[in-house]
Amino acid sequence: MRSGRSRHALARKIGMPPGTLCSPPEKKDLPVRISLIDYDATQYQEKEIHAIEECFPFRDKSSVTWINIDGLWDTKVVSTIGSEFSIHPLILEDIQNTQQRPKFEDLDSFLYINLKMIRNGPRHGEMTIENISLITGSNFLITFQEGPDGDVFGPVRERIRKDGRIRKFGTDYLTYTLIDVIVDNYFLVMEEIGERIEALEGEIVLHPTPQVLSPVNRLRKQMVYLRKAVWPLREVLAAMERAESPLVQQQTLIYLRDVYDHTVQVMDTIETYRDMVSAMMDIYLSSLSNRMNEIMKVLTVIATIFMPLTFLTGIYGMNFVYMPVLEWQYGFYVIITAMVCIVIGMIGYFRLKRWL
Amino acid sequence: MRSGRSRHALARKIGMPPGTLCSPPEKKDLPVRISLIDYDATQYQEKEIHAIEECFPFRDKSSVTWINIDGLWDTKVVSTIGSEFSIHPLILEDIQNTQQRPKFEDLDSFLYINLKMIRNGPRHGEMTIENISLITGSNFLITFQEGPDGDVFGPVRERIRKDGRIRKFGTDYLTYTLIDVIVDNYFLVMEEIGERIEALEGEIVLHPTPQVLSPVNRLRKQMVYLRKAVWPLREVLAAMERAESPLVQQQTLIYLRDVYDHTVQVMDTIETYRDMVSAMMDIYLSSLSNRMNEIMKVLTVIATIFMPLTFLTGIYGMNFVYMPVLEWQYGFYVIITAMVCIVIGMIGYFRLKRWL
Amino acid sequence: MRSGRSRHALARKIGMPPGTLCSPPEKKDLPVRISLIDYDATQYQEKEIHAIEECFPFRDKSSVTWINIDGLWDTKVVSTIGSEFSIHPLILEDIQNTQQRPKFEDLDSFLYINLKMIRNGPRHGEMTIENISLITGSNFLITFQEGPDGDVFGPVRERIRKDGRIRKFGTDYLTYTLIDVIVDNYFLVMEEIGERIEALEGEIVLHPTPQVLSPVNRLRKQMVYLRKAVWPLREVLAAMERAESPLVQQQTLIYLRDVYDHTVQVMDTIETYRDMVSAMMDIYLSSLSNRMNEIMKVLTVIATIFMPLTFLTGIYGMNFVYMPVLEWQYGFYVIITAMVCIVIGMIGYFRLKRWL
Amino acid sequence: MRSGRSRHALARKIGMPPGTLCSPPEKKDLPVRISLIDYDATQYQEKEIHAIEECFPFRDKSSVTWINIDGLWDTKVVSTIGSEFSIHPLILEDIQNTQQRPKFEDLDSFLYINLKMIRNGPRHGEMTIENISLITGSNFLITFQEGPDGDVFGPVRERIRKDGRIRKFGTDYLTYTLIDVIVDNYFLVMEEIGERIEALEGEIVLHPTPQVLSPVNRLRKQMVYLRKAVWPLREVLAAMERAESPLVQQQTLIYLRDVYDHTVQVMDTIETYRDMVSAMMDIYLSSLSNRMNEIMKVLTVIATIFMPLTFLTGIYGMNFVYMPVLEWQYGFYVIITAMVCIVIGMIGYFRLKRWL
Amino acid sequence: MRSGRSRHALARKIGMPPGTLCSPPEKKDLPVRISLIDYDATQYQEKEIHAIEECFPFRDKSSVTWINIDGLWDTKVVSTIGSEFSIHPLILEDIQNTQQRPKFEDLDSFLYINLKMIRNGPRHGEMTIENISLITGSNFLITFQEGPDGDVFGPVRERIRKDGRIRKFGTDYLTYTLIDVIVDNYFLVMEEIGERIEALEGEIVLHPTPQVLSPVNRLRKQMVYLRKAVWPLREVLAAMERAESPLVQQQTLIYLRDVYDHTVQVMDTIETYRDMVSAMMDIYLSSLSNRMNEIMKVLTVIATIFMPLTFLTGIYGMNFVYMPVLEWQYGFYVIITAMVCIVIGMIGYFRLKRWL
Repeated sequence: MRSGRSRHALARKIGMPPGTLCSPPEKKDLPVRISLIDYDATQYQEKEIHAIEECFPFRDKSSVTWINIDGLWDTKVVSTIGSEFSIHPLILEDIQNTQQRPKFEDLDSFLYINLKMIRNGPRHGEMTIENISLITGSNFLITFQEGPDGDVFGPVRERIRKDGRIRKFGTDYLTYTLIDVIVDNYFLVMEEIGERIEALEGEIVLHPTPQVLSPVNRLRKQMVYLRKAVWPLREVLAAMERAESPLVQQQTLIYLRDVYDHTVQVMDTIETYRDMVSAMMDIYLSSLSNRMNEIMKVLTVIATIFMPLTFLTGIYGMNFVYMPVLEWQYGFYVIITAMVCIVIGMIGYFRLKRWL
Repeated sequence: MRSGRSRHALARKIGMPPGTLCSPPEKKDLPVRISLIDYDATQYQEKEIHAIEECFPFRDKSSVTWINIDGLWDTKVVSTIGSEFSIHPLILEDIQNTQQRPKFEDLDSFLYINLKMIRNGPRHGEMTIENISLITGSNFLITFQEGPDGDVFGPVRERIRKDGRIRKFGTDYLTYTLIDVIVDNYFLVMEEIGERIEALEGEIVLHPTPQVLSPVNRLRKQMVYLRKAVWPLREVLAAMERAESPLVQQQTLIYLRDVYDHTVQVMDTIETYRDMVSAMMDIYLSSLSNRMNEIMKVLTVIATIFMPLTFLTGIYGMNFVYMPVLEWQYGFYVIITAMVCIVIGMIGYFRLKRWL
Repeated sequence: MRSGRSRHALARKIGMPPGTLCSPPEKKDLPVRISLIDYDATQYQEKEIHAIEECFPFRDKSSVTWINIDGLWDTKVVSTIGSEFSIHPLILEDIQNTQQRPKFEDLDSFLYINLKMIRNGPRHGEMTIENISLITGSNFLITFQEGPDGDVFGPVRERIRKDGRIRKFGTDYLTYTLIDVIVDNYFLVMEEIGERIEALEGEIVLHPTPQVLSPVNRLRKQMVYLRKAVWPLREVLAAMERAESPLVQQQTLIYLRDVYDHTVQVMDTIETYRDMVSAMMDIYLSSLSNRMNEIMKVLTVIATIFMPLTFLTGIYGMNFVYMPVLEWQYGFYVIITAMVCIVIGMIGYFRLKRWL
Repeated sequence: MRSGRSRHALARKIGMPPGTLCSPPEKKDLPVRISLIDYDATQYQEKEIHAIEECFPFRDKSSVTWINIDGLWDTKVVSTIGSEFSIHPLILEDIQNTQQRPKFEDLDSFLYINLKMIRNGPRHGEMTIENISLITGSNFLITFQEGPDGDVFGPVRERIRKDGRIRKFGTDYLTYTLIDVIVDNYFLVMEEIGERIEALEGEIVLHPTPQVLSPVNRLRKQMVYLRKAVWPLREVLAAMERAESPLVQQQTLIYLRDVYDHTVQVMDTIETYRDMVSAMMDIYLSSLSNRMNEIMKVLTVIATIFMPLTFLTGIYGMNFVYMPVLEWQYGFYVIITAMVCIVIGMIGYFRLKRWL
Repeated sequence: MRSGRSRHALARKIGMPPGTLCSPPEKKDLPVRISLIDYDATQYQEKEIHAIEECFPFRDKSSVTWINIDGLWDTKVVSTIGSEFSIHPLILEDIQNTQQRPKFEDLDSFLYINLKMIRNGPRHGEMTIENISLITGSNFLITFQEGPDGDVFGPVRERIRKDGRIRKFGTDYLTYTLIDVIVDNYFLVMEEIGERIEALEGEIVLHPTPQVLSPVNRLRKQMVYLRKAVWPLREVLAAMERAESPLVQQQTLIYLRDVYDHTVQVMDTIETYRDMVSAMMDIYLSSLSNRMNEIMKVLTVIATIFMPLTFLTGIYGMNFVYMPVLEWQYGFYVIITAMVCIVIGMIGYFRLKRWL
């Protein structure tokens, strides 16, 4: 979870005029990476951009231009694009706010879409959340990614390079494709969470130790973050479908509805997992009580058997001058026999009570 | 629950263009079974199909044709049907996605309905969930079933064979009949769940052991899956009723409303069972606490009775040179009598406190 | 709760064409009891019917005819009425389905209303739920009752016999009167539940034994069933008021609104009782913990007092050749005094900790 | 809570025709107290009424007439007013039903408003709920109060007597004023509840005894009753504002909106208090567990220290003929030293585990 | 939390005519501080006001005038402004009611907005809630602050002084700016709460002592208050955007939407934190149970090892005349060896049960 940093970023801005851009405090020294893909049905071109101005000629070409920007810390890049493509300062602020809630805004000349790219992290049980903004114009698509850690768009680039189909459609279809691939990654994340839940369920039943709570708690938090990312995405997609923007063609609507359905399915799965996790906590707590019962049974059995016995030895350890049995020749054996009877009786009693 | 497989299937597709069909990974070697029933009010014909192309002549006949396909793993079959009946690739993808959420889509030339066929499994306490898709055209109905394990449509086939009534109606009525028989099976599943709940309730009150939690947990999960299957089905049926599609005749609407009511009733029962199961957990947890109290009472009673007695024997086991009582002739009996008094007093005290 | 039977009844029907009537499996041998009351402002007539056909002449009379049928097991009676009054087969099926959710259907020539008649059972803490269907035509009202155990309509019959007022109104007012008397019985049931809750609350505070859970659980279940009966009734009444059917006269609407208000009040009371019952469970669980604390305190006090004492006696029971104190003349009394001091100190300590 | 009586009242009425008035069973012997205030901007008149007929001349005067009736048990008074002011029998029934849910009804010639007058009771922690009905006509206002225990309208009467402002407005403003003063009393009740919550919170943290549960439970119940009184009042006020009745003047609407806002604020506070009370229960339960831990620690420390020591004394209390140490001269002191070491070691261990 | 005082203030007003102003009871002796800022695009003027009448000339100037009033206890100041700017008495009452729920009212000639200014308090873990009212006219903005403890508007004043941009816009933009800076402070408060939650989470896992509950409880309460402040603010902003008041220009709407989005984000974060805090309580409770298990294990292990040993010593401490082993030369060592074996066996058993 990298929430700390960005909230700080927001906090530092208090009192500044709206639309003031300020870069996230870390990684400022890393270069911002910009890549550009330009294609139509007949041709295809891909290049690495070093100065943002290299992109501008593509703005007026009729082919589809996808400008991808990795890294939000260079305020100048963002503001240059902002002024060149005449993006409202508040939208630019949203782009840089990595805590932005997924949202959709129809700004006539382009659409602004914000969502979360969630991937399984490098280590087991980790999850990376990255903020991503899409600016969809009539013949260009600009994507702003939070960091330099790569993205999930590899297969889309591959399809643009190889497959002719995506190249026949416009920017709206490209936008859909990117959202679709992000939502597909939610399934991958859910799948891995599902596997961890199953593993933890087995673990909790077998060894209900407190160590098991820490991964359960991490799971819970991750699902909270997932929920926060996916829930508003539903509204985003519904709003986009209803927007009746000329930027979204009729034939793309069915695809949007499809990805909307997938989002609903992710939400359903999250709810199912929440139920499972809370059932897991119930099992954990009840198994704690159970173990306590087991421990107490052992203690009670031991105490109930040995206390009367020890009492008996105490009796015959007393120093009275006149005591019965003590001087019998087989007195000791009589007493030992009595003790054995007591033990057998006790065990029988516990068997009856199903404690043994 | 056969959820693991299909989620994998989905996961593997990431980045592929939408509508790419890929078959579920298992059972690929099994042949896909296709059966066809063709009827109108006057005649009736049933045949096993070996090559999918045999179905096509029926498409243009005015009689009702029901094509049933068991098994989704042969991508070629699905795509052939898709192109022959001009079904949108996304719908074909939904057909093959066994994790599909129940949905209804009015595609003008036909209706697409997806729902879950839930049956009691072969073993006690098991439940089979199978994804099923219906394509309802004006004179044909195609059903896609997930697997080769049979279905619940036997009685419907029987009625087509024997009873003239269903043969007087069109594909919309056949569609309703299939949905109705599926929903009726939900009741069977609920009934069996209800019986297991009742059995478990008795068990928990009598023997609140941790072993009882595992079936409770299975119950809970099954109800989560049922809820996921039934809840969206309500919307499906409501949407179908409201759709005002020419494919659904006026006289069929009352039947749809009836099956809608049944769905609501299933939902109600699920909610009732959820309440019962959660009450069951409360009873389990409180009975754990109760048992603990019982155990502790035994321990406390034992300790409270024997500790003072052992202390007394300790007193008279001390080796002081000058001690009272020790040398009395009946000293021992005096002490024993004192002990008996203590025991009686203790037991009286516990009676008073209602511990015995 | 007589739910088991009817669900079975439903289950056995799977695959049958909709509207197939099949009688509940029990009580088939009992005769169905039919009674008829016919009245208008000027005259009144009441008779026991033996063959259902005796009712038919009344259908075309302008006076109000109330046909009451006790027992649903004779399928022929139901189907004869169905065909004579041209009732849709699905409605007939609903009438026989004793698990039917309360519903309202405006079928132009008559209104169909289904609701639950709930009464306090013969034994304390019992509750009888009976399914009841009303068919309100322009000049006839048919009521179908599930069983032969009588009903709550006695006072209504009495008013028809004696009082002229109800005889001035039509079938809609009679329908309202029957619903009203059913809802009034909900209050009686709630009242008795309220009394049991109060009794249980006192019981739980005084004697939090596990025996108390069983009536609490029964209470909970009864409230679940009540809720299932009352909640949809609200919608039924609202739908009936909104229906603008010519069968419901303007002046009756205010009465419907009144009984609607009563239903809302019942729902409110149910919610209040639910809160009370769940608070009761909290009190029960916390009092279990409390008792445990009490028990443990006794054990700890006993152990803390007697363990040091026993240890001391152990010391002076050792057989060392050279030991101090042992041979003093008053050694024994010194030790006993020390022990008394220890006991007093311990008790003081526990007083301080508020354990005694 | 005086709920028992009135529910009985309702129960006894089952089967009677709607609008049958029957007086609450108690207090029948007390006289019903009627007072009348008549005013306009210029004059003012106040009198005690002995026979209800004395009010009727005021009905046709253009000045504002406020008739206040304390006590609902005299059915004749209520029915006389009902017929004189032509009030529908169902409304009269609602007036006498002290369990009535707050409601608003626009009956063209007058408005019917029902709400609850809640006051702090005479003893600490008590709360009185009284049902109150308002009939607002164009130039008269009739208020029906449940009992003879006084009301909260004293300041309003005072203002009518002294201040000219309220005398300039009509019955709608007087109605608003009475509702406002009732809602203001909700704040007083909330304030007192808030103080009790704060006191209980402190108490629970310091002395988590079961005695503390009883006031917590009373608090809970009172909040349930408050909620039941306030929640529907919101709808009542909203309905009254929207009613567009000629009986409510334009300038009064802003006052209604204001009292509506106050109601929302009361609801908010109730929710806040509910959260606090449920947090209190959590704290109570966790502090019970905590105390248990403390008790068990004491027991364990005592047992862990004295059991090994007693065992050691046991060793040297054995009667073997040949035993080491026993005959050493300082043997006893060696053993005692060993014991002291054991004690110190144990205490060190418990310190380490933070038990001491 | 300074809630006690104001509720009292409200309580004291019961029965007074609506709009009666009465000052909060404390701080009456402090002077009310009034400051005025007047600006347009070209000029800027700032002054401290001593008599409220000094403001009135600015009312008719076309430049933007911001009058800020710190302190509500001087009723005369508020009522003077009220009559000069013709503000309805009920609005004046709302201004003085520090418990006012955030609300928006469009009063044609001006807008009334009420919200809460929440800041981190001077000490760690504290939070200050202050009520603030805004009256936005066409060329003036009046802000009423509850107290003299400063505000969060410093940066806004700074921007008016220095930066030309804000000076180009009207009062609506100034209103937005103030709301925005208040909402930005919510983020600061949330951030600090987030840090405290993280710190407490670590603390609870390591040292689950009851001391940790008190800050958790404070956190909970603060979040309840935050929720009460933020939730209605959403509606306020939505209402303001929808109001279509000529006082809010078209270009300002996008800014309002932006601050609305921020409010939603705050709500989301509050929900997330609530989940975290309730998960924290679960962890705390389960760790209490865990500790109990640990304690009981220690006790049981100790008792199980030493009870049999003490019993054995008791056996050989009995004074029978004829006992085996006692007189063997190595009898003592035999017994000691037996004891060691018992100890080893026990420890092995506990290892097996994973208790050691």
